[in-house]
Amino acid sequence: MIREPAVAKALDTLDTSACVRLAQDLIRVPSITGEEGAVQDLVALMLEEAGLEVDRFDADVSRLKAHPRFPGMEVERHEAILVAGLLGQKGDRSLILNGHVDVVPPGDRQAWHASPWSAHIHAGRLYGRGACDMKAGVAIAIAAAAALKKSGLPLRGRLIVESVVGEEDGGIGSFAMAERGYRAEAAYVLEPTRLRLIPAQAGALTFRLRIRGRAAHASVRYEGVSAIDKYELVEARLRQLERSLNAHPHPLFRHYPIAYALSIGRMRAGSWSATVPDELECEGRLGVPVGMASADARKELAAAIADAAQRDPWLAEHPPQIEWFGGQFDAVEVDPEHPAFAALQAAHADEFGLAPELEGAPYGSDMRLLVHEANTPAVLYGPGDIRQAHSADEWIAVEEIVQAARVVTAAAARYLAA
Amino acid sequence: MIREPAVAKALDTLDTSACVRLAQDLIRVPSITGEEGAVQDLVALMLEEAGLEVDRFDADVSRLKAHPRFPGMEVERHEAILVAGLLGQKGDRSLILNGHVDVVPPGDRQAWHASPWSAHIHAGRLYGRGACDMKAGVAIAIAAAAALKKSGLPLRGRLIVESVVGEEDGGIGSFAMAERGYRAEAAYVLEPTRLRLIPAQAGALTFRLRIRGRAAHASVRYEGVSAIDKYELVEARLRQLERSLNAHPHPLFRHYPIAYALSIGRMRAGSWSATVPDELECEGRLGVPVGMASADARKELAAAIADAAQRDPWLAEHPPQIEWFGGQFDAVEVDPEHPAFAALQAAHADEFGLAPELEGAPYGSDMRLLVHEANTPAVLYGPGDIRQAHSADEWIAVEEIVQAARVVTAAAARYLAA
Repeated sequence: MIREPAVAKALDTLDTSACVRLAQDLIRVPSITGEEGAVQDLVALMLEEAGLEVDRFDADVSRLKAHPRFPGMEVERHEAILVAGLLGQKGDRSLILNGHVDVVPPGDRQAWHASPWSAHIHAGRLYGRGACDMKAGVAIAIAAAAALKKSGLPLRGRLIVESVVGEEDGGIGSFAMAERGYRAEAAYVLEPTRLRLIPAQAGALTFRLRIRGRAAHASVRYEGVSAIDKYELVEARLRQLERSLNAHPHPLFRHYPIAYALSIGRMRAGSWSATVPDELECEGRLGVPVGMASADARKELAAAIADAAQRDPWLAEHPPQIEWFGGQFDAVEVDPEHPAFAALQAAHADEFGLAPELEGAPYGSDMRLLVHEANTPAVLYGPGDIRQAHSADEWIAVEEIVQAARVVTAAAARYLAA
Repeated sequence: MIREPAVAKALDTLDTSACVRLAQDLIRVPSITGEEGAVQDLVALMLEEAGLEVDRFDADVSRLKAHPRFPGMEVERHEAILVAGLLGQKGDRSLILNGHVDVVPPGDRQAWHASPWSAHIHAGRLYGRGACDMKAGVAIAIAAAAALKKSGLPLRGRLIVESVVGEEDGGIGSFAMAERGYRAEAAYVLEPTRLRLIPAQAGALTFRLRIRGRAAHASVRYEGVSAIDKYELVEARLRQLERSLNAHPHPLFRHYPIAYALSIGRMRAGSWSATVPDELECEGRLGVPVGMASADARKELAAAIADAAQRDPWLAEHPPQIEWFGGQFDAVEVDPEHPAFAALQAAHADEFGLAPELEGAPYGSDMRLLVHEANTPAVLYGPGDIRQAHSADEWIAVEEIVQAARVVTAAAARYLAA
């Protein structure tokens, strides 16, 4: 296969083994959302070693939180360290490679076969929390930028590597990048997509429900009202809402068992084993169909809960309370034929002999912040399977990291090289 | 009505207004299980002022916990302050008046119309956490002892007031009293019984269930297994177990909607709103039928959960774990015609013109510790309705406190006076 000379030159300088080692080094620094300072220091060092100009800044969390379009936050956060790596000068083209370094908690430690921070490779798989979601993607952004730098190729404009925090709980990092003025003609967000190109993404809105019961001694439980029992009524109605939101999914989402999933992730109820629980609090996320405004999705949830409440005498008098907090991801869609995305499709076709599949993503990500806040059309493209994200024994195939690094490097060269 | 002279003399010296004030003073000192030091100091003072010999001691918690028959504990406890008040010398009769000063947490503060520690009286009702369960009972024990002391009646043996802690989470206090050697011919435990005499009591066993799921990102929730969904399967089977345990209740329990209730009081699941919860932990209490050994009841619960598990492929491979912890109340039954209990029935009949109703109690209490650990036949008898116990706006009728104080004082005089 004959490649464009610029692409060939960039790929010649790409060090894929180093890229995998970068991913391992990043995984070994725990960085649960809210505690990303140490790993961002490491990213800054890596970008510096790659020869990029580094902009490491401490975003003003309280100012961002007060912003009317602040995308939400779930963890207690005292700082938000952001790192951007810059290559080249402003020109007629520009490209952002965006990745987040924060990871979700490991969950039940017993469910892991090794430490979540081991980053060991076994049978071609790299294991660890964040392996798939998405420290491999961050490593690829750094490796691709390093290759372009080392290649000495003249560029038509700037390449910007954005290493962000707080993606998992709303996107404060990419929001802060947009606020600082970072934007480009286009962006690749290197989330795990199994090397599919994602030009459309479902939204995801985090909510909290508070359901009241009436306390009573457990021995006369029939005198009380269990908030857990009432939750079960609400939950059944939410399943119905999920079915109705999924009645006519967007064409790129039709192959998913559930395109727009509604899930309860946390729950806490009651205060004493022998008291009927008089309150329950749960947190979940509502998937938002592509094409639906977040405000309308919120109304649908509220209506479903009101409907469940009016069918039960207790809930009718004590309606559950809904709070929207944390991550508020709007649904988003871009044109996959934009030149930067056409370059990505061509680079993928060069690597595999086939154009990438286009697919919708059922999960929210920073993509919508790049589009809506930084006015930068963005797609998702990266190695790894979202099914691994947030799971015990999270892993990513080493070969896929290498392939994705080659495609991203080639695409950036194809789009940016003068 | 002509009363025995000793009874008349004791009732003459009983100060029922002071008794109600004692109850108020006790309620105003918060004493959630595990934090009873301050209220026990107050009880010791009250007993001293009543003219009793006071034995205030600090039980050795770690030694008690290591005891093979330790009745269980749910709270973190660093000390257990016990107070006994003694009147008279050893003789051929003796009587214990037992009450606990610990209370359950107030729960949802918004559900209360006034502070849980207000102890205000409105429209004949005394309000506050512990009003019914059972600081009124403790006040009555002190007031009755004060009356006997003040009456100067010669006694056939000792009257012992036991003010204990940790009843709500297992009974460490009454267990410690038995360990210290306190026992008697009989005991009245002044729990809220609506002035019925309780010679039989259901058991109550506290348990914890751990249910596993499989984590996955909420957007692909069908790839995970929600521990909350699996809980709902287990819970349905537990409802079935409850029905079977209640198929043939003891004659004194037949009027209850549920004699031996199974209730889940606390729950906690998951760690992130956007992750399918991979673990759920809940705590509850299993009612034990009178006549059934606790060991057999535990086996029934384990069998029910195993049955639910084998009907579900996931649970079959990941069986829920059961832990027995905290309060382990055996079921217990005594002969209501024992002379001390006959005296109580007679005193009640004097007060109301009718013998007290005999009833079984569906809740566990320290009664079984007096019977099994102190070899002291015990009944429950006291003012207030168990339906108020553990509820918001807990209350007790002031008139019932006064009536119960008169009956208990008269019964003690009738049984103990020489």
